[in-house]
Parts: sequence; C-alpha cells; structure tokens
Amino acid sequence: MISIPQPHPEELFHTPSILGFCVAKDESRIAVATNFSGRYDAWGIDLDCAFPYRLTNEGQVPHAMHFDPQNRYFLVAFDRDGDENAQLYLAPSRGGPKQPLRTHAGRRFMFSTVSKDGNRIYYSSDKDEPQFLCGYVFDLETGEERVLYRGEGGPTVLAAVSDDESSWVTYTAFANTYQIAHLHRDGARTSLTPDPSTPHVVASASFVGDDVVFATDYLADELYVASFHPKTGSFERVWAPENGSVAHLAVHRDSETAYAVVMRGVIDELYRVDLRTGRAEKLDAPCDVIGQLEVGDSGRVYLLGASDVHPGNVWLRDLDGTWRALTNVRPMGFSPEDFVRAEVVHLPSFDGLELEALPFRAKPEVANGYTIVWPHGGPQAAERKGFRKLFQYWLLHGYHVFAPNFRGSTGYGSRFEKMVERDWGEGPRKDMIASIEWLLSQGLAERGKLFLVGGSYGGYMTLLLHGRHAEYFRACVDIFGPSNLLTFAKSVPDFWKPIMKRWLGDPDDPADRERLIQDSPITYLDGMTKPMLVIQGANDPRVVKAESDQIVQALRDKGRDVEYIVFDDEGHGFMKLENEIEAYRRTVEFLDRHRQDEKP
Amino acid sequence: MISIPQPHPEELFHTPSILGFCVAKDESRIAVATNFSGRYDAWGIDLDCAFPYRLTNEGQVPHAMHFDPQNRYFLVAFDRDGDENAQLYLAPSRGGPKQPLRTHAGRRFMFSTVSKDGNRIYYSSDKDEPQFLCGYVFDLETGEERVLYRGEGGPTVLAAVSDDESSWVTYTAFANTYQIAHLHRDGARTSLTPDPSTPHVVASASFVGDDVVFATDYLADELYVASFHPKTGSFERVWAPENGSVAHLAVHRDSETAYAVVMRGVIDELYRVDLRTGRAEKLDAPCDVIGQLEVGDSGRVYLLGASDVHPGNVWLRDLDGTWRALTNVRPMGFSPEDFVRAEVVHLPSFDGLELEALPFRAKPEVANGYTIVWPHGGPQAAERKGFRKLFQYWLLHGYHVFAPNFRGSTGYGSRFEKMVERDWGEGPRKDMIASIEWLLSQGLAERGKLFLVGGSYGGYMTLLLHGRHAEYFRACVDIFGPSNLLTFAKSVPDFWKPIMKRWLGDPDDPADRERLIQDSPITYLDGMTKPMLVIQGANDPRVVKAESDQIVQALRDKGRDVEYIVFDDEGHGFMKLENEIEAYRRTVEFLDRHRQDEKP
Repeated sequence: MISIPQPHPEELFHTPSILGFCVAKDESRIAVATNFSGRYDAWGIDLDCAFPYRLTNEGQVPHAMHFDPQNRYFLVAFDRDGDENAQLYLAPSRGGPKQPLRTHAGRRFMFSTVSKDGNRIYYSSDKDEPQFLCGYVFDLETGEERVLYRGEGGPTVLAAVSDDESSWVTYTAFANTYQIAHLHRDGARTSLTPDPSTPHVVASASFVGDDVVFATDYLADELYVASFHPKTGSFERVWAPENGSVAHLAVHRDSETAYAVVMRGVIDELYRVDLRTGRAEKLDAPCDVIGQLEVGDSGRVYLLGASDVHPGNVWLRDLDGTWRALTNVRPMGFSPEDFVRAEVVHLPSFDGLELEALPFRAKPEVANGYTIVWPHGGPQAAERKGFRKLFQYWLLHGYHVFAPNFRGSTGYGSRFEKMVERDWGEGPRKDMIASIEWLLSQGLAERGKLFLVGGSYGGYMTLLLHGRHAEYFRACVDIFGPSNLLTFAKSVPDFWKPIMKRWLGDPDDPADRERLIQDSPITYLDGMTKPMLVIQGANDPRVVKAESDQIVQALRDKGRDVEYIVFDDEGHGFMKLENEIEAYRRTVEFLDRHRQDEKP
Repeated sequence: MISIPQPHPEELFHTPSILGFCVAKDESRIAVATNFSGRYDAWGIDLDCAFPYRLTNEGQVPHAMHFDPQNRYFLVAFDRDGDENAQLYLAPSRGGPKQPLRTHAGRRFMFSTVSKDGNRIYYSSDKDEPQFLCGYVFDLETGEERVLYRGEGGPTVLAAVSDDESSWVTYTAFANTYQIAHLHRDGARTSLTPDPSTPHVVASASFVGDDVVFATDYLADELYVASFHPKTGSFERVWAPENGSVAHLAVHRDSETAYAVVMRGVIDELYRVDLRTGRAEKLDAPCDVIGQLEVGDSGRVYLLGASDVHPGNVWLRDLDGTWRALTNVRPMGFSPEDFVRAEVVHLPSFDGLELEALPFRAKPEVANGYTIVWPHGGPQAAERKGFRKLFQYWLLHGYHVFAPNFRGSTGYGSRFEKMVERDWGEGPRKDMIASIEWLLSQGLAERGKLFLVGGSYGGYMTLLLHGRHAEYFRACVDIFGPSNLLTFAKSVPDFWKPIMKRWLGDPDDPADRERLIQDSPITYLDGMTKPMLVIQGANDPRVVKAESDQIVQALRDKGRDVEYIVFDDEGHGFMKLENEIEAYRRTVEFLDRHRQDEKP
C-alpha cells in the first residue's frame, strides 16, 4: 500500500566518509576527518554525546589531527585541493580559525607527535632535504625550530619520540617492502633490527619506557611484534600471529599491552598481546577491516572499522570488552541488505600462483549481465572487505564487479608483495588475464560483456591491458593512471625518487629502461582500439596530469574515441562531493553507452 | 606563548540551527530539522548514538516531520525556497528520496497527526477553502482523501484527533489573541470553552481518553491548563501558573500528566501538572527558553531549549529526572564566555505602562560606542533569552544591541498583547521612543550613535520610526518590513485575510483606512532622510516583495540613499547559509560605513 521509492544509486556518494580520527588525551572526545557537509573538515565528537561539532571550516582534507594535552589548541594539517603538501596549523581547542604553525610553499609536513606538555611539536618535512627529509622539533614557547636529524640513505620520517624527548625512532624507506628503523639516543643511531642490510619492514614503532615495540617482518614473510632494548642492544621477537601479518600496532604503556591488527588477505583480525609474556588473545571486532587503531591512557581501544556492507565508523572498546559506535555513518535510504557482500574466491594464476579475488554479483533484479573488472591501485595495496561506495554504486546500476588481488598486493606476505617490484607490467598483467579467464570459465561473467576500470596503478593496468588485450573489453576507464613509466618515474614527488629504482626501475639505467618501455601503456597505442574515458585531477602529485595528457593526446592523434575529464581542484582521488559524483556518474554513463544493448 | 586566533564573528552563522524535532513512537530515535550541512534538511539521531544521519537531501526547510509508528515511512513537509507552501512527502523510514504524498501548487498543507497504525494521515489545507481551510484524512491504503470539515468563521486548522479517530479538535482563529476550539464528535461541533464569543485563545489541545486537555486564557489574562469533558459537556480549569502563561503543553496520557512550558516575560519555566489533582511541580530545565516540548509514551520528556549564550539543542529528561543533551550544537571557536548575556530591564513607557527590554552590552574590548536598536517582529512575539546569532554577531563587532518588548509583545498577558491590535503605529512606536529615551537617560547609549534595524513588523517599525523620528538614528536597516499598510493588508496569504481586520484594520473601511494611512511608513517619506538598507526575500508570502519595492522606489525617486538587496531563493527569513551571511555581513558593512568616525 505505501510505496516508498528506492533511492537513486548516486545518493550513495552523499554518505559521509571518515578518513581518520584522533583521541584527546583525557578521552573526553575524539576528532574525525569527515565530509559531513560535502567537503572534508575536522569535526569534534564528545564521548557523552556523539552529535559532532565543527573544529575547522576549510573544506579541505585534514591530513593529521591532534588535541593539545592541555586543551589549548587543536593541531591539524591541511593540503590544498589534493596537492598533498600538508601544512601544519593550530586552531582553538574547541575548533575555530586555523593559524599557520609550520608552512612552506610546495613542501609538506609529516606530523609525528607532541611533547607530553604539548609545548613542542615533532614532525618531518621535505623542506630542507627534498629527497631524504629531515626531522624537527618546534617549540611553541620560543617559536624556534630545531633539526633533530637529516635523513640518510632514503626518505627518513620521524616515527616516535620518547616521553622524556631524549630519544626518537626514525624509519628509512628503500621500498614499500624495505623500510628500516633507527633509535636515536645519546647522539647515537642504532638499527632496531640486527641487520638493516637485509630487506625487511619496520612499522608501528612505540616507546614503552626505554624499550621500543614495533612490527617487523625481519627474517620472516609476514610482520610480527618485536621489541628492541637499548640498554642491552637486543632485538626480541615478542609475538607472531599464526596466520597473517601485523598491519597496525597500538600500545598501552601502563599495562605493557599491545593491540594488533592482523591482516589476513581481505580481512583484519584484532589481537591483544601481553608484551611481558608474548601471549596473545584474539578479540572480537565490530568490523571486517580496520583502518585505524588507537589505545587511550585508560586502556580503552578506538578503531575505525568497516565491512563490505557497513560504512566506516569509529568504535570504542570499553574496559569490559563491549563495543560502542561513536559515529553512525549510514547511507541514506539504503539498508545493508541493499548492498552486495564481497565473495572471496581463490584461483590459480598463469604460473600456478594462488590469487585471492573479490567477485561482487549484482542482484538479479538489476543485473545487466556486464562485468566491471577492477585492477586495484597501489600496486602494493589490495581490495578488501571494506565498504566501497563506488562498487556498490556500480552494483546498484546492474554491473557485476570483479577485483583480483594480483601479485604485488598486500595481505599475502612480503614475498608476494615484492613480486610487483621492478615488474609492473608482466606478472600482474598476466594475473589479471588469468583471473578474467577464470571468471569466464566459472560462468561468472560473459565474454564480450567485460569493462575495465582502474585508478592509479589500476589506471596504469587498465591502460596496459587495453593496449595488449583489448579483445577482452568493450570499453575502458583510466583514472589517473601512469601511461608512460619513463616520464612517470621522473615526475613523482622528490622523496619518492630514492625508492623508484627498487620499486619500478630507473629510466636512466639502460637495462631498466628497456623493461620500462616494454611495460609502458603508451608503447601499445595501436592496441588501444576500444572507447576510453580518462579522468585526472589537475593537482595530482603522484601521477601528474601529464601522464593522462600524453596518452589522451596520442590516442586522439590516432583518431581514437577518448573522453577526458580533468578536475582542477582535485589531486590523487576525488575529495569534493560534487566532483566524486560527476566522475562516477560519467563513468556509468560511459559504460551504459558502450553496452551491446545500447541502453541509455 | 601559544597564540590562538579568535574566530571571525561571521563564523557564528555556521553554527547549525535546530528548528524542530519529532520523536519516534518507540523512542529509539528522533528527527531534527537542521542546517547541519549549510542547508536545511531532516536528520535522524539514534538515542544510543547521537551522531546524526541524513533523512532527506533536499536543502529545504522541513516544516513537519513524523515517523510512521510501524517504521515504514518518514513523513516530511517541505516548501520551496521560503514560499511557505508546505507539501507533504513520504521518505523511507531510514531516510531517502521523497515521494509526493499530498501536493498542490501554490497551496499549503498543515500536517496534524497520523492514525495509531500509521495508515491514515490527518492535515488541514487551503487548497479547497483558501481563507477558512478544510481538514482532511488521507488513507495510505486506498489512496483516498476525505474532507473532515470545512472551516467556518475563520481559518480553521485540525489540532488533534482521538485515538479511535471518531473525534477531532479544530482551532478557528479570528486574531492571534482570539482563537477558539471545537470538538467534532458524532457529527456535532462543540466549543471547548463555555463562550466562544468572548475573545480568548485555546491552544495545545490533546485527547486524554475522551477528554480534551488544552491551554486557554478564557476569562483570564494568561493561559492556564483546562479540560473539556464531552460526556458532561463541562469545561474545567485544571491548573494555572502563579505567574506566567502556559505556552506549550505536552500530555502523557497513561499517567494523566501534562508538562507545561510557562512563559514569564523573556524566560520559560517547565512544570509537571497532575491532571487528576490539578497539582503542579516546577521542574528544573537545562535552558532559559523552550522552543518545543514533547512527551514520549514512556513518560520521557524531550525539549528544544536554548539560552542567551547557548544555542538551541534537543534535551531528553529521563524518568529519574536527569537531563541529557541529544544534540551538541555549539558555535565553532566560541565559548559561552565570548557571548554577551541578555540583561533584563524594566522601564516606564510614555503612558506609564511598564515595558521589559533586553539591553546587550558589547564587551569593553570591542565596544565601538554605537547601539543598534532592534524592534522585534511579530508584532505579537517577543525578544527573549534565547540564542541570537545575529545579536552576538553585532556584539562581537562592537555594537551594543537594545531590544524593547513594546506593547503587543507576547509574554506579558493577553491585555498587553492586544494593545498592538488595530494600533500598529502609535502605541508601539511611542514605546520604542520611550525605551530609547530611557536608554539614553541611563547612559547606556549615546545620542547620535544609534542605528535602527528590524525585520518583518520590526522592519515596518524601523521604516515608521525612520519616517517620523529620523533625528534619533544615523542609518536604518529594514528587513522585509511592510511599508504600506493598505497594500500589505491585501497581499498577505489568503487564510490570514479573515484575521486582518481585528489585527491590523480593513483598508476598505473608511474609518480604518485613515488610521492605516497614518500608520504607514510610506506616508512619511519626507522624514526618511537617513541612509537606508532594505533587504527582502523574493518568495516572501507574508510581506511580499512589493512592500520593499515600493518604498525603495519612492525613496530613490526622491534621490535618497537606499541600498536594496533581494534574495531570489528566500522567503520571510534567510534559510540558506550563504544568504544569511551575505545579508548580515552587508548590514554590518552598512552600519560601519555610517558611523561618525567613518571606520571601514
């Protein structure tokens, strides 16, 4: 009798996203970075009344947030329209207009922490050492900045500072899979792991008294919890998950407890680790993937968690083990049942390597028989069981979605992740083809009814697959993907450059150069015969606009059908609601136009 | 050491406003009408997590909101850009796209209630009887609308419907101070008060079983709680506050308890009244003024309350008497200490009548020595101890504000309120002058440093004072004020017309006509020698744009200095953030420009 209309799929994009949060020292409130009003800003949420109030009114993405422990200020970092040059500002503790704290045109500030009294701010920046970075402390009382260290060997960021500010930990990266850490103490610099020349990763470092607790995959394939004792100089393996890799670690110093997010393929698990005994206990979590994890002084745990049918929300785990949502983000007009859950499948690739993949099947009542193949970005990242507005938007429009975690994806160990290094275009590409063939063989998609859409590395893979395997696809959408690895390698941010050789290859090295040409989409222009849509943000510092410009121009010179959309106020991602909606509305219009049945 | 910037006064307007709320039958959530994202919409708030979620995405003001008791729909009324022609829509219960339920171009629907099962919607409308209105029930199962009654004698709205839907109560208005009520039952129509021909008001009617409980000032100067028993036909006085008038009444049927908001001049008090014994108890309230009051089936009380330095928030009074805020609206960057509290003074008018007035003194560190005199709108309304963004904005800019509650204001009894009827321009105008003279005599303002700003009736009073007493003011701002009572009387909404004679006067009656001319600002063009700013919403149905157009044109024809701003997408009030900011920014720029010291 009462007929209630279904919302338009586009309404999904109006669902706020929470990018991150911080917890006040006294745990009376949190701040969340969210686009509640269509633009990103920092909003405060009191724990006793979750109705949020504005802390900033900038309409930009807060890249770091921190409440002064003495409640005099709220520290926040903003870039400008996606340029990723985060600058540090102070706003009043209750929120208000921002005042520049540390700014430098064209450079960025990576906030680390503040002193216990809130009077000194610790951060790294590329302003003095564009490639290797420096670490700094800024004294709010004197207004003076002091250099803590200059980066060495690779981009070096400040990871943690001891309570007495006499010691700190830095990470130096040579690749995403090779990041070492040093303890700086009494003028000396000591590796946290026994042999920094063996490739491994150190992450999530915290001080526990004098000791440093961290996650590492030193001499292992997956990250585990370890500690370093400066007095004895000893490295100790504390706890390793039976299965999976420690992706985040949050330490409660008083109880010498660590909370660990363990990544197992497409899902996360939460553990509590007793640092004294090395024993761990699995905790229930209110979500499938955990984006951020914090522990308060009280021992309460805070996380940002989502699942495939539930948007990301901030949750609080009380001392009695009960979870309480501090936010209530929900897509207007949709219930979880309106969304498609991610299936998880395993398939053998061309060389027998097992791949995990997520096929999403559009509901029968709307399914149009077409499938969007989605190579994810990164490439050292993965599609997981989080809430994907874009996927659900496509699914509501009737498209199936298929997201294979090709070699190089995270969540499957270090060996697997390294497979994409210096091999961007061969193994992963063949994984994509093997995955597509598997999908077709299972009857989950129909040959001739495939589309290809990807962003960033996924945009690169889209271009490459289009150039070399156009026969599979009806049309392709490239979202800020590198088109030419020779130019791409030289156009990334300065502090990425030291890791490019190990990650991608060096265009100035003749041996690498040939492979980079072979793996560049622009080498395969002749093969790119299908209609294409290219979308780019003008301020993108990772994949610069010239990458999209050149492939669009080259294809247009050949008379190909290429639609090109540039957003002037976006970077590597669409952070303004109206742009996000336009980008994805036009993507669906483009796909709809290129379906066999020519439906509008 | 850490210098935190003060927010710009304009930031105040970004503070969300809550216009109203509704409570779900099961009390698991509420809906609020708020401009959280810069535009008005309905937002849901679960009682166990106050983080709001969108129920609508219209960017318009929700004029009525109701959750289906069976959780199938959310009923909401929207007008369009301030035209006040509220149309009824259904959205999904969780929020989502709206579907027209009852719409009629150029006419309005006044939602009353829904049946206990949610299947029938009760409302009144001017669509069939433009002046007197009709009451209707719409059956969601059959899609049929039935006329319950046709209005008689005056605009007649549907006030309440009995649980079994066999009886209903209507209000018929002859003036703001003369509104009678009838019980419709078994085909008969009975006045709730013994003598409907004696002018009085009936309001806040509810059924308690067969009986009707309501507030009335029948044979009294202030409203008290009364009841009507249809079986005996008897009217009973239940409880009268010692001091003050019952402004809202919310009834808990099971316990036969009424919660009463008692208006005492510029503040409200909250009482619990036992309807069986007629005994009442004063309850503490978390605010000074109460905008809305509801009682849930559980007996919990919900109100929308504010004070002079605290914006309006929704509060829940639990059964144990404790109050909990369900919303946490706060002005970004400001603390209550940054605002100016309303002082409350009493002064004798020209004829000895005591007037209450609110002088707000700008803080010494910003005070510029100038005072804005503010005649309020209505005129049967009042300035009270609520949160006034506009006043605080002016105060932060250094202007003192002075708001006298001239004769005709509400909160001082029926006799006082009636003093403005058929006397818009004489008594109240002299009250304004007497109040200004008092202010000057007290040394609270300086002669030669007064500005005059008002909206609606306050705009009319601004124009009239400008025309007749320009010597007091440096410059004047008229916000949608009637300029010509002859044209105004004929341009109001149809269903206002029956009350115009008693309220204002009849331009077609020669006796009234002369007075209306004498009280019309446009009669005093020659006196309007000071600079003027006029602001108007193009869709204003109460004071139509022609009222502002004609005075602006007439003054410009005389070569006077008049600035005129029209907002195309606003009605009688600025409901879009960017318009509100522009209107008041330009007001301050205008006042600043006309200060003696010529500061920018």
